[in-house]
Amino acid sequence: MPTQPSEAGRVAGRELPSAVAVREVGPRDGLQNERPVPPEDRVRLVRALLAAGCRTLEAVSFVSERAVPAMAGAAEVLAGVRRHLESADEEATIVALVPNLKGVEMALDAGVDALTVTISASPAYNEKNVRMTVDESLEAIGSVAERASEHDTPVDAVVSCAFGSPFDEEIGPESVAVLAAKLLGVGCTALTLADTTGVASPRRVERALDAVAGATGRPPQHVGLHLHDTRGTALVNAWAAMELGVCRFDTSVGGLGGSPFAPGAGGNLATEDLVALLDDVGIGTGIDLERLLAAGTIAEELVGHGLASRTMSAMRGPSGAY
Amino acid sequence: MPTQPSEAGRVAGRELPSAVAVREVGPRDGLQNERPVPPEDRVRLVRALLAAGCRTLEAVSFVSERAVPAMAGAAEVLAGVRRHLESADEEATIVALVPNLKGVEMALDAGVDALTVTISASPAYNEKNVRMTVDESLEAIGSVAERASEHDTPVDAVVSCAFGSPFDEEIGPESVAVLAAKLLGVGCTALTLADTTGVASPRRVERALDAVAGATGRPPQHVGLHLHDTRGTALVNAWAAMELGVCRFDTSVGGLGGSPFAPGAGGNLATEDLVALLDDVGIGTGIDLERLLAAGTIAEELVGHGLASRTMSAMRGPSGAY
Repeated sequence: MPTQPSEAGRVAGRELPSAVAVREVGPRDGLQNERPVPPEDRVRLVRALLAAGCRTLEAVSFVSERAVPAMAGAAEVLAGVRRHLESADEEATIVALVPNLKGVEMALDAGVDALTVTISASPAYNEKNVRMTVDESLEAIGSVAERASEHDTPVDAVVSCAFGSPFDEEIGPESVAVLAAKLLGVGCTALTLADTTGVASPRRVERALDAVAGATGRPPQHVGLHLHDTRGTALVNAWAAMELGVCRFDTSVGGLGGSPFAPGAGGNLATEDLVALLDDVGIGTGIDLERLLAAGTIAEELVGHGLASRTMSAMRGPSGAY
Repeated sequence: MPTQPSEAGRVAGRELPSAVAVREVGPRDGLQNERPVPPEDRVRLVRALLAAGCRTLEAVSFVSERAVPAMAGAAEVLAGVRRHLESADEEATIVALVPNLKGVEMALDAGVDALTVTISASPAYNEKNVRMTVDESLEAIGSVAERASEHDTPVDAVVSCAFGSPFDEEIGPESVAVLAAKLLGVGCTALTLADTTGVASPRRVERALDAVAGATGRPPQHVGLHLHDTRGTALVNAWAAMELGVCRFDTSVGGLGGSPFAPGAGGNLATEDLVALLDDVGIGTGIDLERLLAAGTIAEELVGHGLASRTMSAMRGPSGAY
């Protein structure tokens, strides 16, 4: 009756990835809707995340400082992070979000290792978010990718609302897949599907990944996921995705991010929550949970309020460590 | 590249149960640590849960009213529920928790359909919770089971701390399995493994179920799970358990339950959260999410504070229905 004892990366007789790549997005996605945090404090947070073992960090975005005041001082943050990496003789992939050609020039000047661009599977969300049609966004992303390729800098296209729209629209897997193919067509080197409003489910994840694989030839092993925990489903979606082969996730320290008007409700998948789950199952991330907790404490100080990560509060609670 | 489109109960090429039995424990486990709610209001909550489609409800416990004042008036609650079921010509399985022979007599007199008993895989927790050693608890449970069998009333043994202890103890899967075998040996008819402090993980779930299957011959299809969401892992554990064959879960409306000193942090797996996930995947529960939300609103009124269910807050939020 009993099956074989489970091995690392194998649960319920199912092969899971032996390692998962985590892109920590707290310093960018997590902080962008918060009260602005000075560049030197953002460097401090990045350093703590590096010390915890995070090796890919979306640290800044080069967007209009007027539109997103919390992201002002991106070049200063990058310079501080670079100085730290050089003095500590450490390696890490520092990522910047860029919206357009002006942004990519600034990011390349500042010496980023990789770029992210965003576009939405929801036409309504795209217009609200970046005031462009989806076709206009595609064109802007094409220019970014062309410029980045001259510097051999990879560009990951993050498709928001890939599992559902907050507006009155149906987002079919096919439309996501068509958009994914176009993004690769204009020169993006990687794809990440984002669940902006936390409506994904294992089934929606499977259907979107299937459609993307069909349209682009990229299997789940080569697609990243960016999950939100609005409905408490980020972990189960990550799990189902790993069963399909996904081995790259965006996460945010403490679950930082999401709407500032509903604290704790709509944030990103918390890095702590994913790492705790993967630790227990024996899937490597290279991230140390105790040190991550220290980074989370800094993040809390900087934003001035508690964070949503359940693992973080449980580790501090009466029953102690995970 | 794309796999077959997913079917009901099948995700990632994996067979999942086509239906899941939910035992709603909100009126008992959920309310027991709250400020006492009058019996007529507890009947109102049970009626709302029945209206939502819950067909198995742990409605009361027959314990010392001095020790657990919130559970006083159990016979009155049961009488009210019975009257409602008869007048509405409805069927449901009404369950009572009983600690001992005195409790089972009262429960049988009150006409319950099934019983739950609890015992802990953690000796320290058992002594704190019921002031008996595990062996003393086993003996008490044996008397309960013997008496219940004379009435053909099933007895489900809920093993608390089955995946870890809040105290300085290692809870091995083997000790859980040995206890499970003893519980069946003394006449319990069903087994439920409870994650009292929310430390379970997919791997711990697998190991415990494997060990129990080995020691008792009961495969995961015949073992229930009672999960807590302290670390936000209740849903991913439920998912992994379903992949192993588990098709019976305890849940609590709104996630009611857990420590009153950490609201929202340590409650039971919320019925809404499980039902929303299963709805999306096409696994039947018979429970209607909109009506469940109405029951959750009543639960909130009765306890006088907000509940932890993420689905509940998301359904009320700006982005509307799931």
